[in-house]
Amino acid sequence: MADKITKRAEDYSQWYLDIIKIADLAEHSDVKGCMIIKPYGYAIWEKMKDVLDRKFKETGHSNAYFPLFIPKSYLSKEASHVEGFAKECAVVTHYRLKVDENGGGIIVDPEAKLSEELIVRPTSETIIWSSYKKWIQSYRDLPILINQWANVVRWEMRTRLFLRTAEFLWQEGHTAHATKAEAIEETEKMLDVYADFAENFMAMPVVKGFKSENERFAGADETYCIEAMMQDGKALQAGTSHFLGQNFAKAFDVKYADKEGKQDYVWATSWGVSTRLMGALIMTHSDDLGLVLPPKLAPVHVAVVPIFNNSEQLDQIKEKLKTELDKLKAAGLTIKFDDDDQKRPGWKFAEYEAKGVPVRIAVGLRDLEKNQVEVARRDTQEKKLYDLNSLSEQVINLLDEIQNSLYHKALKMKNESIKKVDSYDEFKKRIESEGGFFLVHWDGTKETEEKIKADTKATIRCIPLDAVAEEGVCMVSGKPSAKRVLVAKAY
Amino acid sequence: MADKITKRAEDYSQWYLDIIKIADLAEHSDVKGCMIIKPYGYAIWEKMKDVLDRKFKETGHSNAYFPLFIPKSYLSKEASHVEGFAKECAVVTHYRLKVDENGGGIIVDPEAKLSEELIVRPTSETIIWSSYKKWIQSYRDLPILINQWANVVRWEMRTRLFLRTAEFLWQEGHTAHATKAEAIEETEKMLDVYADFAENFMAMPVVKGFKSENERFAGADETYCIEAMMQDGKALQAGTSHFLGQNFAKAFDVKYADKEGKQDYVWATSWGVSTRLMGALIMTHSDDLGLVLPPKLAPVHVAVVPIFNNSEQLDQIKEKLKTELDKLKAAGLTIKFDDDDQKRPGWKFAEYEAKGVPVRIAVGLRDLEKNQVEVARRDTQEKKLYDLNSLSEQVINLLDEIQNSLYHKALKMKNESIKKVDSYDEFKKRIESEGGFFLVHWDGTKETEEKIKADTKATIRCIPLDAVAEEGVCMVSGKPSAKRVLVAKAY
Repeated sequence: MADKITKRAEDYSQWYLDIIKIADLAEHSDVKGCMIIKPYGYAIWEKMKDVLDRKFKETGHSNAYFPLFIPKSYLSKEASHVEGFAKECAVVTHYRLKVDENGGGIIVDPEAKLSEELIVRPTSETIIWSSYKKWIQSYRDLPILINQWANVVRWEMRTRLFLRTAEFLWQEGHTAHATKAEAIEETEKMLDVYADFAENFMAMPVVKGFKSENERFAGADETYCIEAMMQDGKALQAGTSHFLGQNFAKAFDVKYADKEGKQDYVWATSWGVSTRLMGALIMTHSDDLGLVLPPKLAPVHVAVVPIFNNSEQLDQIKEKLKTELDKLKAAGLTIKFDDDDQKRPGWKFAEYEAKGVPVRIAVGLRDLEKNQVEVARRDTQEKKLYDLNSLSEQVINLLDEIQNSLYHKALKMKNESIKKVDSYDEFKKRIESEGGFFLVHWDGTKETEEKIKADTKATIRCIPLDAVAEEGVCMVSGKPSAKRVLVAKAY
Repeated sequence: MADKITKRAEDYSQWYLDIIKIADLAEHSDVKGCMIIKPYGYAIWEKMKDVLDRKFKETGHSNAYFPLFIPKSYLSKEASHVEGFAKECAVVTHYRLKVDENGGGIIVDPEAKLSEELIVRPTSETIIWSSYKKWIQSYRDLPILINQWANVVRWEMRTRLFLRTAEFLWQEGHTAHATKAEAIEETEKMLDVYADFAENFMAMPVVKGFKSENERFAGADETYCIEAMMQDGKALQAGTSHFLGQNFAKAFDVKYADKEGKQDYVWATSWGVSTRLMGALIMTHSDDLGLVLPPKLAPVHVAVVPIFNNSEQLDQIKEKLKTELDKLKAAGLTIKFDDDDQKRPGWKFAEYEAKGVPVRIAVGLRDLEKNQVEVARRDTQEKKLYDLNSLSEQVINLLDEIQNSLYHKALKMKNESIKKVDSYDEFKKRIESEGGFFLVHWDGTKETEEKIKADTKATIRCIPLDAVAEEGVCMVSGKPSAKRVLVAKAY
């Protein structure tokens, strides 16, 4: 724990990296752009996966697995998709290595060149719709509601742990429907699943909205998203759900016969969240002392640090705490009882603080004589003495309280960051000085959108689903606008 | 269910493929050698994963994630490892595609050539040990007990769904220890975890043993394995656990300081099972009617087929069954109540039979008047009338009975397939006519091992851990041998 954490106010980007390091979540690998997710980081990701997977299954989806590789020609089948994805990607050109006869060590065997190059999937629409073509003949085969947990690769030059890496882990849902209405309903349903997960598990409030045409997924008719606000006033896109229309069905010629035998193209959606959520989680709650985790996603809920001088004392403490700790375990909580006698209690306190364990219990014999234990909550640093007999009940309540409190603190920050602005000059000043979300009138054109980006680096994050009709004029062009859109600088 | 299943006796290989097709488990993709694991197949794999993951965690392991790509030079660092794995593999040579200026569509950008080629991981020892080098300084950093769930690629020319595919899913444990004894203990512990999983969850008896030097993992000092016997008399290696000695520590220069400050290389293990287990599961239990699943790995435990003519009848049946079905659900079982009125009961019976649902309940109003339901078990095809009031209790017992019965049936087959043979002529005849496991004396040389393989296609599957000392002479060379080894043709 000798590592120092840079203060947020000093250098937010460095603070983020320091938190990842001190909490031992991930690190860069020797392979450019690829990260190693370390056990503690992966344990948080597993918690996220478990919750999301349950929600996907509750909404009728099944998991499946499609190939890692996509033939180069598949990417080209959907015109706008290829523009979006056939750029920076990992290309497999050969399938064999051999020992160089001229002593050059292990080399790529020039004889083993693939007749068609394979792309490591950047996303799986094309490989999946080439299968759906075989699976779908009639309305009886619909809907198909499939999700895949997988690794994907998008060759990124400027990487940042969790937020932007060449390889990342994600889930991608790919559904096929008989009607447009059903596909839109699915797109919206999954957006709600993501928003519910973000708010009720990550304790991270989000704004639900549509992307502008410019920011849409390559191949989508409509991209829905959830946008969160980080502590530095920058937005983070936390999940997207795409209504793909009949674009992929047309690209892969996937038709179904309805009850009357009439043929039509199938309607599609896709939706995904990734290990990027780890970055969002870190930046929403953590502070200058380390990681802060919402209890619902914490791998360890309670760290117990006994204060003892010898093994008799340790045994006494264990004995006294047993009943209450057993009750906590029975409630499904993970307890770390840290009786390592090589480390001092102070070291352990700092360690669990850095790792964002929501509740820490410190207990020595003197406390126990008074039937008390000291309980510290990670989020507010507050310490209280709890009665031993009701410890488990109080800790369970405290974890609930922490979960709620983190959410409301983040909600307050998000709400306070949202401001309505009508003058472009004011916007330009305040986006620089304050950051945050700006609700502004926009004329709906790509030109204006690009001007805002060029002038300020801010982008239209979304057109909020709950935007109310409001006559106004575009802050840049002065042309009419019917409702406000959300603009921010973003990760 | 119009598809016909080839009989095992007629063409075992085709039967295997037919089962996969009729149970809708997997199919070949358009990408050569890569398979698509379909939802029902993936649901079985998920059950396997869940059990194994729990067992890994119970034995102290954590999950983590390492990069998909391995720099070419890393593979060469461990001398025997490179020989084993730097052969048929997917090689990434470029990181960008572009539109051909000469109208050739999307092409690989020749400007975007990697300075060092990346290999899609065939196994992760090298990339992981290059990290362990950074993580390990002292005995305090040990042991490291990490597992990874991942996809790996080994370019296979002759593929077979689940058994041998270019891309497959697996887990790979990679542990680092301060002492040789501790690493060997870990290797053996994980072999036991695999054997326990195979026997108590897959209902598949196995023989535990060592591999001969020839068949060892490339880079291991000792490879332990579990070998199972399929219904056609061929063996299948179902899992391996490798004691890697200090080979990877030396290759990547990973040393630790002990309590006295003395430096030594770290000891290593690795161990893995893959989607190959799906093939083993299918071939151990299934029959000419379809898949047969042990209840502990079945995605659906009980299929209920109501026999009804109208919705009033259906409602009555639902109402009557509700209490007992709720009890089954409360016991953690998955029940499929199939009230689809577009399909006849006979069609449904065949469907659940093909998919290996362990228990089927058929129930009409006439049965219910007598307070009875018809319960059929998939493994023996036996049908019985159960009293409605004790239905849940009886079904739970029946599922236990099926799990045990499948194991004992497979155990009997395996045990009957094992025979001691001393004459090479007899061995050559019987391995051809009967198949199965042969316990024979072997002189321990690579030459004899290769002669047996060349003559009969059989290989030394393992030197059983429970082999008793028995003086004998090698059936091929006549040289002395101290114990018998297990020989069979294998998948």
